[in-house]
Amino acid sequence: MKTCLLHAKTFARIRERLKGLEHKVEFIVMDEDGLFSHAGDGTIVHDIRPDIVFGNTDVWFGDHARDFMIAVLKTGGIDWFQSSAAGLDNAALISVGKISRLYTTNHTQSEAMAEWALWQAFDFLKRGPQHRAQQGDAVWNRLEMREMMGSRWLIVGFGSIGSAVGKRVQLLGGHVTGARRSPGPADGSDHIVPMALVKSELEQADIVLLSLPLTEETAGMVDAEFLAAMRPDALLLNLGRGQLVDEPALVEALDAGRPAFAALDVTTEEPLPETSPLWRHPKIAVTPHDSAVTQATYVRADETFLDNLGRYLAGEPLKHVVPPETFID
Amino acid sequence: MKTCLLHAKTFARIRERLKGLEHKVEFIVMDEDGLFSHAGDGTIVHDIRPDIVFGNTDVWFGDHARDFMIAVLKTGGIDWFQSSAAGLDNAALISVGKISRLYTTNHTQSEAMAEWALWQAFDFLKRGPQHRAQQGDAVWNRLEMREMMGSRWLIVGFGSIGSAVGKRVQLLGGHVTGARRSPGPADGSDHIVPMALVKSELEQADIVLLSLPLTEETAGMVDAEFLAAMRPDALLLNLGRGQLVDEPALVEALDAGRPAFAALDVTTEEPLPETSPLWRHPKIAVTPHDSAVTQATYVRADETFLDNLGRYLAGEPLKHVVPPETFID
Repeated sequence: MKTCLLHAKTFARIRERLKGLEHKVEFIVMDEDGLFSHAGDGTIVHDIRPDIVFGNTDVWFGDHARDFMIAVLKTGGIDWFQSSAAGLDNAALISVGKISRLYTTNHTQSEAMAEWALWQAFDFLKRGPQHRAQQGDAVWNRLEMREMMGSRWLIVGFGSIGSAVGKRVQLLGGHVTGARRSPGPADGSDHIVPMALVKSELEQADIVLLSLPLTEETAGMVDAEFLAAMRPDALLLNLGRGQLVDEPALVEALDAGRPAFAALDVTTEEPLPETSPLWRHPKIAVTPHDSAVTQATYVRADETFLDNLGRYLAGEPLKHVVPPETFID
Repeated sequence: MKTCLLHAKTFARIRERLKGLEHKVEFIVMDEDGLFSHAGDGTIVHDIRPDIVFGNTDVWFGDHARDFMIAVLKTGGIDWFQSSAAGLDNAALISVGKISRLYTTNHTQSEAMAEWALWQAFDFLKRGPQHRAQQGDAVWNRLEMREMMGSRWLIVGFGSIGSAVGKRVQLLGGHVTGARRSPGPADGSDHIVPMALVKSELEQADIVLLSLPLTEETAGMVDAEFLAAMRPDALLLNLGRGQLVDEPALVEALDAGRPAFAALDVTTEEPLPETSPLWRHPKIAVTPHDSAVTQATYVRADETFLDNLGRYLAGEPLKHVVPPETFID
């Protein structure tokens, strides 16, 4: 018998799908008040020793993420951790990775994140801020807009998010150049260039999307020089990590008129401090790192977990296993 | 030799494409100051008697639309009028139709209009107003969003605009029901229903788009009963005509919580009077009937005109000819 820890909201969503596993797995849930109990009979559990842990958005966005994490780390070691996130550049997840025999990621957040990119791109191309300002002033004045059809995108970092965005942009008639380390064609791109050529591609791009992980090489890559190579009518989108962008340089560049606008789902410091100039800059849209937050994202992460749980119980290899050496300092 | 009247901005855009027609057509242009001249030598023309007129957005959105129209109507009769619009429910265009032997429309505005619909839909699904309010207050609070993928659209009036929207929604993973008078399948829809069934489809729809012409039957069709049949979490989009919607009933319905939001590119009175409650309603987005206003729309209308001009000069049938009886009172 294995023991599996997950959030009570997640369990409620998938309980029908877990029928038939009662003799193989005992489910322990943490509820919204941070209480741990047996999912079967509701009795409180004090000493939690799960083999399997599903750490997803219900946990991380709830009020007791810390209690959940402490409970996991206190075990000293678990057999398998399923994350609902794609990334690993988070101290808490790395701590979990160090004590997990198997650690698996999930890449289904990219669908919702791709829609975030379309939303921000349309609001820019269709002059959302100017239209709303006119509406506020009761001014009826036609504004010439730009089109997604024929727009030129440069997607920096062409993994699951970049590809999900690129596919949609192509379907809507846009042109997609992707930049990544590995060469060769990729779904959702018309053209792939190596990372070294990003700067020379900037002058062609109406929209530049950052969708790459934070590493020593990528930290601060969007600096004054990068921004100065963008077009004055271009949009910068960041779905990667806040630290990719030199934020003071971005504010200076926007004030100087190049690029035209930036939409950021991630910031160097999160939550973004109330005193940050990003909040009230007229050429910046900030969303609170919630681009993936949709019911459908939860459901798609559940599917990844259920698929891997079936494999785990059948003794088959799991999907999206992170190599253990990733977690060695 | 035929004489063709068009706007100077249009002529400048297509002059290279008109090379070789000098011996067949003389072009007269109206410039941005309302002055008429020969495109060839720039000499002023006082007595304008065009055979062919291209009436497009450069004309209607310029400062001298009225002078252009008067010059056309004063002729008492022209041979062919090419409109850049799809619709005919406009008194000035109907007056022109009455004096034109041939009147042709243009349906290429639907591409830009379809992008307007996606823009408004994304801003609704991604909770644009709430996100912007939070940003204004420097509040970092994740909002659960909805997805285009899996969204259910009801498109009322399934002509060129409805189809252009429907195709994009399908490509992005949404489900499209179209309503129109003629039965049978239509590109961009999963399902076509007759107009009589619109009200029974409303309860399924996340997004209801009006893209039908104004007629005696359709005027005021979106009344209190229609709105009460919508979902409390639904969005109403209007790309048709303002008079399709009973505006006081819409304000009441939004205040009562059903539907959730409305985005209107058209209003009963245009320009919308400064005193209209639509301007400042928190659940209404108003754009000034500019959903089609993009450079690419101008260029696509130019292509329609150039294609028809070639046909006209070759004595072939034109495309998108309006039956002359349409203009008989």
